[in-house]
Amino acid sequence: MNIIHVGLLGCGTVGTGVARILMEKEPLISDRVGAVIRLKTVADIDLEKDRGIRFENGMLTKNAFQVVCDPEIDIVIEMIGGEGVAKDLILKAIEHKKPVVTANKALLANHGNALFKAAAQNGVDLAFEASVCGCMPVIKTIRESLVGNRIQSMIGILNGTCNYILSKITNDGSVFEAALAEAQAKGFAEADPTLDVEGHDTAHKLAILSALAYGMEINLPDIYVEGISRITPMDIDFARQFGYTVKLLAISKSLGNAVEARIHPTMIPFENLLSSVNGSVNALTITGDAVGDMMLYGYGAGMMPTASAVISDVVDLARNRISGASRGRIPMLSYQPGRIRKIPIVPIKEIDTHYYFRFAALDQPGVLSKISGVLGNYGISIKSVHQKGRKTNGSVPVVMLSHLAREEYVIKALSEISSLDVVSDTPVLIRIEDEAGQD
Amino acid sequence: MNIIHVGLLGCGTVGTGVARILMEKEPLISDRVGAVIRLKTVADIDLEKDRGIRFENGMLTKNAFQVVCDPEIDIVIEMIGGEGVAKDLILKAIEHKKPVVTANKALLANHGNALFKAAAQNGVDLAFEASVCGCMPVIKTIRESLVGNRIQSMIGILNGTCNYILSKITNDGSVFEAALAEAQAKGFAEADPTLDVEGHDTAHKLAILSALAYGMEINLPDIYVEGISRITPMDIDFARQFGYTVKLLAISKSLGNAVEARIHPTMIPFENLLSSVNGSVNALTITGDAVGDMMLYGYGAGMMPTASAVISDVVDLARNRISGASRGRIPMLSYQPGRIRKIPIVPIKEIDTHYYFRFAALDQPGVLSKISGVLGNYGISIKSVHQKGRKTNGSVPVVMLSHLAREEYVIKALSEISSLDVVSDTPVLIRIEDEAGQD
Repeated sequence: MNIIHVGLLGCGTVGTGVARILMEKEPLISDRVGAVIRLKTVADIDLEKDRGIRFENGMLTKNAFQVVCDPEIDIVIEMIGGEGVAKDLILKAIEHKKPVVTANKALLANHGNALFKAAAQNGVDLAFEASVCGCMPVIKTIRESLVGNRIQSMIGILNGTCNYILSKITNDGSVFEAALAEAQAKGFAEADPTLDVEGHDTAHKLAILSALAYGMEINLPDIYVEGISRITPMDIDFARQFGYTVKLLAISKSLGNAVEARIHPTMIPFENLLSSVNGSVNALTITGDAVGDMMLYGYGAGMMPTASAVISDVVDLARNRISGASRGRIPMLSYQPGRIRKIPIVPIKEIDTHYYFRFAALDQPGVLSKISGVLGNYGISIKSVHQKGRKTNGSVPVVMLSHLAREEYVIKALSEISSLDVVSDTPVLIRIEDEAGQD
Repeated sequence: MNIIHVGLLGCGTVGTGVARILMEKEPLISDRVGAVIRLKTVADIDLEKDRGIRFENGMLTKNAFQVVCDPEIDIVIEMIGGEGVAKDLILKAIEHKKPVVTANKALLANHGNALFKAAAQNGVDLAFEASVCGCMPVIKTIRESLVGNRIQSMIGILNGTCNYILSKITNDGSVFEAALAEAQAKGFAEADPTLDVEGHDTAHKLAILSALAYGMEINLPDIYVEGISRITPMDIDFARQFGYTVKLLAISKSLGNAVEARIHPTMIPFENLLSSVNGSVNALTITGDAVGDMMLYGYGAGMMPTASAVISDVVDLARNRISGASRGRIPMLSYQPGRIRKIPIVPIKEIDTHYYFRFAALDQPGVLSKISGVLGNYGISIKSVHQKGRKTNGSVPVVMLSHLAREEYVIKALSEISSLDVVSDTPVLIRIEDEAGQD
């Protein structure tokens, strides 16, 4: 039986999961693949740590560069993370004509265009299913299952930490800081949670998905990113009264020669299945012109779910080798390299959507007319107004839902409203994604 | 550029969708695949029907057997359905060394073992993504994405017609017959709905999925099947009061050397995402030892969603050909042929689960003690009892939820209870799938 040798770079949490599956399930995988996929070498800076795995003599090394140059290694798995040595190692492996599997979304979102080009030039594949949404086969679905579709939009919950925190605020009425602390205590959030809660991790994933779905180059800098740190139980409670749940959504839509791509807290109606997605999970709705709406749901992070996706890539590459398939059986970025375009991302100020506004208004006559007057001057039409009782700090919350409005005018109007003397605090804005309310 | 020629057998609803995608999206697909996939011939008994497509001269034929023998055809798509001529054509195509794509779940559930064997012996692939859950990539996910997992269970809504009907009963309080009539009027149900509403279509799909997930031969006859035609608004209403939704579920679980595989109306708690899946859609939860719970959701039927899945198979086969991959890059039944076992399906009477019972009890003292006495004699322990008000036809509904109990004793107890003189109608039994209530 054929033996495919694998080298693993980085044996942290996910790397350990990968090693565990490769070693413990070698027979199961060979029953499926018809070949043995064998972990030959594991490179890590820490050779002493107890990972709960019995590595055989000589399997562990500190020299990752030796692994990517080892002529016996057929497939390299990069699990180091970051944009430094990980990038160098991937490039070195590619240079040595070795296909690489990575889960490194930050690296791909920032340097993917160059890395995929280098891989193609060297005639090897760079596989990355685990870089987006952990165990969920989002890359495979877009590149393979939806190949007969023009993908029209993708809307998803791509960060389990944020979804855990928002679920806590929604279901228990916790404030953001308490929910974050609990997420940290349970291991769902990092000590420095910025990358997650400010939406950047979600943006990395959306940059990769948008490239695959629309046949465009990866373009992280132009994605609008807004996190969840300013979401309050009060706004979530108002949302509920209007039939909405608040989620941190990644939203991307094809407009033909341009693309919308944005990350922000979003109100979605209860009927939208994403509103029922609770806890530290991911879910992605993909709309295609043939399939309509489909959704994938699962664990987007964590040792074993992410390792499972890494293994699916390793097996795909092994199967190519065993079956004699040439490189590029599936184009890495979903489209043939010559067919990938620079498609611009629409600036956030040119987006038209629905809005939820909350103003802290002084409890005196004429306030409502002043606020709505400013909105009217900017052509922003209001669907409903609610003045919701209890006075806090001398002001009462006035909540409005808008019809479709352009972000540019919304920002100008809110800036003008916040300088009114009847308004005591910065207005709150949350965008609404509501298919039913298109007007 | 490479050209792959495709022959389509059967141009009904889904066949027309397939032809439309192949013809209208030839450039889009070639941008992705790097080769042209061209529909060369379409065989159908009706050459006159207006399908809204302009077939070029000579493309249409009545002679399907000529298509499968045509040396210029690289891939055959079977969209005829049924177990007669469709089977003969698939076997003939295989004999001529042509890979085949089919969506014919009834054929595969009944004759799949022989067909896959014939394909393997002739060195070609038989692809069938569209046979289960339409556009959702369930086959690809099990065979490829979850290759590093031991799949532990699959629980799903696999029939859109039944889910539409149950959603109607649940949300509008319709009776079964009215909901079915509406589904038929909207085109979601066939004129003869038996195959759908009695659960057989769901069983075909579960037979295929179970084979793939557990490495077993396809075994349709041993799957327990119970449909939704006896579900009443009253039971759905009681279910809601206990926090449950009623769905027609396909349930399969790996028990190591045996498998549970059953189709029946099932109560699931609101927290289970499947309970929020409404309308004529499908959803499948797959639990693997590495990924935990994941879910796929989408349209399980209909012209374009099903055609989309057919196209994904056609492109997979085309990519194998273009890249020079040998047959069997992915084993058709997920495991290498020599590794597929006969794993027995546990008879329904040996299942342990939770139950909902409803008895039509005469409104007189001692009824409850008689009923619970019988249950107690069979070792069936009751978690809660509810006597729910209004008298109908001289009796009141008595509802009970059980702890874990064995089906065999439940059936015996219910039979004994229905012969009690204080019980006026056949007892109702609905199984409960509740992870939280394992006791």
